[in-house]
Amino acid sequence: MMSVDGPVIRKIRLDLPHPTDTDHAGDLDRVLRGLKAQGIIGVQTPLSVVAGLSKILRTAEFRVTATVAFVPILTLLRLEPANTPSRNFGLAVDLGSTNIVGALVDLDTGATVGEHSMLNPQVEHGEDILTRTHFSQQPSNRKRLQVQAASAVSLIAAQLAIRLGISAGDICCISVSGNTTMTHFFLGLETYHLCRAPYVPVANYFPIVCASELSIDVHPCAPVIVLPNVGSYVGGDALAGVLVSGIHRHENVSLLVDIGTNAEIVIGNRDFLLVGAGSAGPGLEGGAVRHGMRAAAGAIERIAINPQTHAISYHVIGDGRPLGICGSGLIDLLAELFSTGIIDSRGKFLLPAKSSRVQLHDGIAEFIVAEAKDTATGAEICFSQPDIDNLMLSKAAMYTMLSVMTDAVGMSFNELDTFFLAGAFGAYITADKAVTIGIVPDIELSKFRLLGNSSLEGAKQVLLSVEALVEIKRIMSAITYVEMNESREFMNDFMAARFLPHTDLERFPSVRDRLGKR
Amino acid sequence: MMSVDGPVIRKIRLDLPHPTDTDHAGDLDRVLRGLKAQGIIGVQTPLSVVAGLSKILRTAEFRVTATVAFVPILTLLRLEPANTPSRNFGLAVDLGSTNIVGALVDLDTGATVGEHSMLNPQVEHGEDILTRTHFSQQPSNRKRLQVQAASAVSLIAAQLAIRLGISAGDICCISVSGNTTMTHFFLGLETYHLCRAPYVPVANYFPIVCASELSIDVHPCAPVIVLPNVGSYVGGDALAGVLVSGIHRHENVSLLVDIGTNAEIVIGNRDFLLVGAGSAGPGLEGGAVRHGMRAAAGAIERIAINPQTHAISYHVIGDGRPLGICGSGLIDLLAELFSTGIIDSRGKFLLPAKSSRVQLHDGIAEFIVAEAKDTATGAEICFSQPDIDNLMLSKAAMYTMLSVMTDAVGMSFNELDTFFLAGAFGAYITADKAVTIGIVPDIELSKFRLLGNSSLEGAKQVLLSVEALVEIKRIMSAITYVEMNESREFMNDFMAARFLPHTDLERFPSVRDRLGKR
Repeated sequence: MMSVDGPVIRKIRLDLPHPTDTDHAGDLDRVLRGLKAQGIIGVQTPLSVVAGLSKILRTAEFRVTATVAFVPILTLLRLEPANTPSRNFGLAVDLGSTNIVGALVDLDTGATVGEHSMLNPQVEHGEDILTRTHFSQQPSNRKRLQVQAASAVSLIAAQLAIRLGISAGDICCISVSGNTTMTHFFLGLETYHLCRAPYVPVANYFPIVCASELSIDVHPCAPVIVLPNVGSYVGGDALAGVLVSGIHRHENVSLLVDIGTNAEIVIGNRDFLLVGAGSAGPGLEGGAVRHGMRAAAGAIERIAINPQTHAISYHVIGDGRPLGICGSGLIDLLAELFSTGIIDSRGKFLLPAKSSRVQLHDGIAEFIVAEAKDTATGAEICFSQPDIDNLMLSKAAMYTMLSVMTDAVGMSFNELDTFFLAGAFGAYITADKAVTIGIVPDIELSKFRLLGNSSLEGAKQVLLSVEALVEIKRIMSAITYVEMNESREFMNDFMAARFLPHTDLERFPSVRDRLGKR
Repeated sequence: MMSVDGPVIRKIRLDLPHPTDTDHAGDLDRVLRGLKAQGIIGVQTPLSVVAGLSKILRTAEFRVTATVAFVPILTLLRLEPANTPSRNFGLAVDLGSTNIVGALVDLDTGATVGEHSMLNPQVEHGEDILTRTHFSQQPSNRKRLQVQAASAVSLIAAQLAIRLGISAGDICCISVSGNTTMTHFFLGLETYHLCRAPYVPVANYFPIVCASELSIDVHPCAPVIVLPNVGSYVGGDALAGVLVSGIHRHENVSLLVDIGTNAEIVIGNRDFLLVGAGSAGPGLEGGAVRHGMRAAAGAIERIAINPQTHAISYHVIGDGRPLGICGSGLIDLLAELFSTGIIDSRGKFLLPAKSSRVQLHDGIAEFIVAEAKDTATGAEICFSQPDIDNLMLSKAAMYTMLSVMTDAVGMSFNELDTFFLAGAFGAYITADKAVTIGIVPDIELSKFRLLGNSSLEGAKQVLLSVEALVEIKRIMSAITYVEMNESREFMNDFMAARFLPHTDLERFPSVRDRLGKR
């Protein structure tokens, strides 16, 4: 194998000698000899590629372009008569339980040349993963989930191909990052033991599969690389996050958190990596908030309340009228309601209300975020006491898990080098608002780093560097899993975190100082 | 990979620990860990095998039998709940243009537990390879030839499985030995350039293919290993012959010849291997002899003529009434007719006839081998002057090619260590009769070694030793091809060889001495 690192798929230009009376090498042998001359040895060739070889070689007068997959055994994927090194594409996929995002990557330049996302069609069988897992227990249903995921990836590939003016068959590799259950669904593997003690996946390292074997419509021999898992709770998406953050490469200890219903937290450096995962409840992704919604067009993602006038301003994704409030908007809203004294440190509305936007509805206090005349639905968007209570539970769980992880390594939050926020949620969060409500610790704001969709980014890196998969395997071997069960200590921490920002204000000096000034 | 040599397919008994709260290894990872503990690393697993893994492991309480293919990347072929090492079978196939022979091999003991042969169904599209090659130029016809060869192998596998009381799915590997055209047909590869200068095959080294990819009904993931070719004239069957003879391992120079319509001759030792191939004409395989036939039931394979009484005795394959005469019978017959003075050294009937069995039919002399009342058809089996003439041409061509090969290395026949006779024809030949007619040189009879079906035997060795394929590759790299074109020298040699045994009796001292005694 070529020893230098590079993209998973490489196009190799071959200018081969014609056969002669003294050179009877077979057509395939001739191609492999040409590759060997360029340092590429040990190449396997699917029969389907061998079958068309002779014609292509002669059509092109033995000047051809070979597409070689460097995973983990070199495979000769195709031979083209033309010189086509500029058409070397891979598809990176973030396989989320709600959204599937695909990025078309030019493997020669490393550039992302297109991105397309769609709703995961599996939501038809359950919004949440547990419902879908239950559904998948029937083999025919498992097959159905596999087909749906594959079709979605095919559709994304087709959309991107059309947009770029290429053929989907030009896509010669796919990398897929997702949590353990999603990747099992994707490969049609059973999840029965994944959700039962001792929570064992069918595979942590997945075999590399042909696109045609999964019925994905790209190049039929395209290798599909599914990022490995560490176990049932720590999937390829989390490993992608570590890869992208690079915390495993540095001397100083950093922390990486994927905020969401299921939160994964990694803390460590080049010597150790601790990972913990737990449920923060649905409050953060809008599931337990009446007007909560996913970060999609129509979602209020930023909210500010004027401390003097209590006038509200917000930003809607897509710039239209609002439909609801997404996670980052909810954090802003809670922080602003607290900062402006509309709610107290227990998260309860203060009466008499400081703002005319606070109203009682069937005896329950609520805050009008957008009036009926201003919304997309024509109904008010409001934030009620139960909504706040649910959000408070999730933020308390989140903070407690972060404390457990730093405690596990005997460090304080201030000692962290960098605090990475990953995931779709982490991409839009406003760090100072998150500190205000105490969902993240009160550390220097410059230490927060938003990673964006690190699951997708990690999948891209796997396409662009054959070493990336090796690095992920090194990360896996360095990881220790921390059980975050509901011990008495955990519960005490949790109860203390159910205040804004926390019962112990010494932990949030900047918030305390700001409140003091108010 | 396990470094010790052994069968291509090995059954590995695994007694794996159950998953626990502290051991969350994935099911596949657990299996691979168990294999690694036995020194087997780098194992690939097809998705179809991964899919059934979890259930099998739990059914068997984690005590399973893994079937691992050691070619050329280890593949985990299947996992069985039971301890089944005694059911480890491979199928070796000799893919002849007329007959396809399969041998079921117990890979643990090395024993051949069954053999079955059938007519190659491709003969429907031409008895000879050139007609079939012409037919195959249409892609749909090429596909047809592939399907026919695959079906024949499936049928042989099914027959052997039934006979052995196993399932065809228990056959986890197939090795196929055949000439270059036959193996191209088998894989559905085009042969257009194979029969046109400069005679280039699509591949000399074939990729290893899944049985399911060729639609062969054995274990779907069974690797199908097709023995490589050196070029268009020297196929995997010839390489199998060298492997089985072992001439490439010894210090002394030996010669190997596969007598037939298309003869391949290899001469060499551990330092060099020269190979030549040429056509000896159809006379030797019964094609140009009126009552000639293949060595099958009903064929007269041995003939003796009493020198005094000229009474004839013969042996029929299958012990029934004769249908015709196969190659070894023809050699015996020609030798006996010459030894008993019924024909002269030019191969012409002497008149007045020494035997009442010599008759004139439409002015052409012929020898009655079997009277009408004794044959299976109720018609005479006879051997006419034109039959003899055709046989003389073939034997002369054969001897000339043998001379060319020894001349090429500057050796006399007597200097050869061993003279191997391979192929179906070589299996039944009587060496002293072959010397008498001068189709082979007059050397010590103890130097002749009959190899039998070395094509099939080589295919078996490939199943039983992963080193055998490596050895074949070493043989290939040692081989130099000798062109046996029709030069003036060749033609002079050929003309001199058209006598019984040869114009130069000094070359056949033992025959000369015997004739002298007569």
